[in-house]
Amino acid sequence: MNLQLTASDIQSLDKRYRANLINGLSGFKSANLIGTKDHDGQENLSIVSSVVHVGSDPSVLGCIFRPNIVPRHTYENIMATEYFTINHIHKDFYQQAHQTSARYPKNVSEFEAVGLTPDYRGGILAPFVLESQVKIGLKLVETYDIKCNPTHFVIGEIVFIELAESALDDEGRLLIHQIDTVAISGLDQYHDADILGQLPYAKPDSK
Amino acid sequence: MNLQLTASDIQSLDKRYRANLINGLSGFKSANLIGTKDHDGQENLSIVSSVVHVGSDPSVLGCIFRPNIVPRHTYENIMATEYFTINHIHKDFYQQAHQTSARYPKNVSEFEAVGLTPDYRGGILAPFVLESQVKIGLKLVETYDIKCNPTHFVIGEIVFIELAESALDDEGRLLIHQIDTVAISGLDQYHDADILGQLPYAKPDSK
Repeated sequence: MNLQLTASDIQSLDKRYRANLINGLSGFKSANLIGTKDHDGQENLSIVSSVVHVGSDPSVLGCIFRPNIVPRHTYENIMATEYFTINHIHKDFYQQAHQTSARYPKNVSEFEAVGLTPDYRGGILAPFVLESQVKIGLKLVETYDIKCNPTHFVIGEIVFIELAESALDDEGRLLIHQIDTVAISGLDQYHDADILGQLPYAKPDSK
Repeated sequence: MNLQLTASDIQSLDKRYRANLINGLSGFKSANLIGTKDHDGQENLSIVSSVVHVGSDPSVLGCIFRPNIVPRHTYENIMATEYFTINHIHKDFYQQAHQTSARYPKNVSEFEAVGLTPDYRGGILAPFVLESQVKIGLKLVETYDIKCNPTHFVIGEIVFIELAESALDDEGRLLIHQIDTVAISGLDQYHDADILGQLPYAKPDSK
């Protein structure tokens, strides 16, 4: 049986039910930890599922922040220091990564609270996650205040990458299923993935 | 062995290699088909991996478009008609979905070219994909022109949803691994996913 919902059906759903449903609609989401530090040296770590590829020349990633909800210290630190790190979440620490979504006070380092290790490299001010096999250092380039709700779309340029060489193929493809990077769906479901196939560049006359 | 790349290392990579690498860095991506129609009735269907959750009140999704590359007809149609559909890609038709990324001329319907079925419902002007088990109808609300590269961030409000009731749990969670929704990584890798766990809402004193 198929369920159909109109705009007014959606608006009248219970708030929690709607949050679960709408968060699941986009499909599988990336699972990353964002590391930042404020000007007093306080480290912060926050799980995000909204990192998205924006372009490869220049090499830029974007992320949606809802500063009134969880990663507000993260957003504030990026605005203040202009640096942040994005670190893949893997199967062996996804539960610790999820725990960073708790509302810890600003003077608590989520690294310490959940048992992950801050690590510095490449001259980047923000901390990386030592346990992560894909570590990306970024510098803020642009931020857009979304009008229809209190969120921000933040774009950073990739200025440092560290990853396991064994996860790269000869043409630069990162085989993230081989390093147990996880995917998120909805607000609280975690997944691992298997490869179905790598498909050739599509042309109108191919089939 | 870990590979480290600085900003200048990244900039000096071969263009194709860099595109593969940077496209893989964000982690797993959503796999969706966007359906649109122009004012002359010409249908268009385009695979996108950049749909991202923006908020659930109002219920809005965003998507990055690179109009100079593939889904340019999609972007033009959304700007002209203000309506589009987002449809999950499942394991049984991911190869057909990938084929929509070929550069067909504007007068060719990708539905017809790849063998998927346009379907209309909910009074939405844009076509849905009949074969998809999660069909979302959206109305354009905002668009942002990204400054650092020629892309647009387009936000639509969800005005219609159709999905299999069996894929929903009692609290509104969509169990997309049960309906074989696929995930993308990089430019050309397709994955299916298994659930690792559903975790409780995190609080500072939970562990």
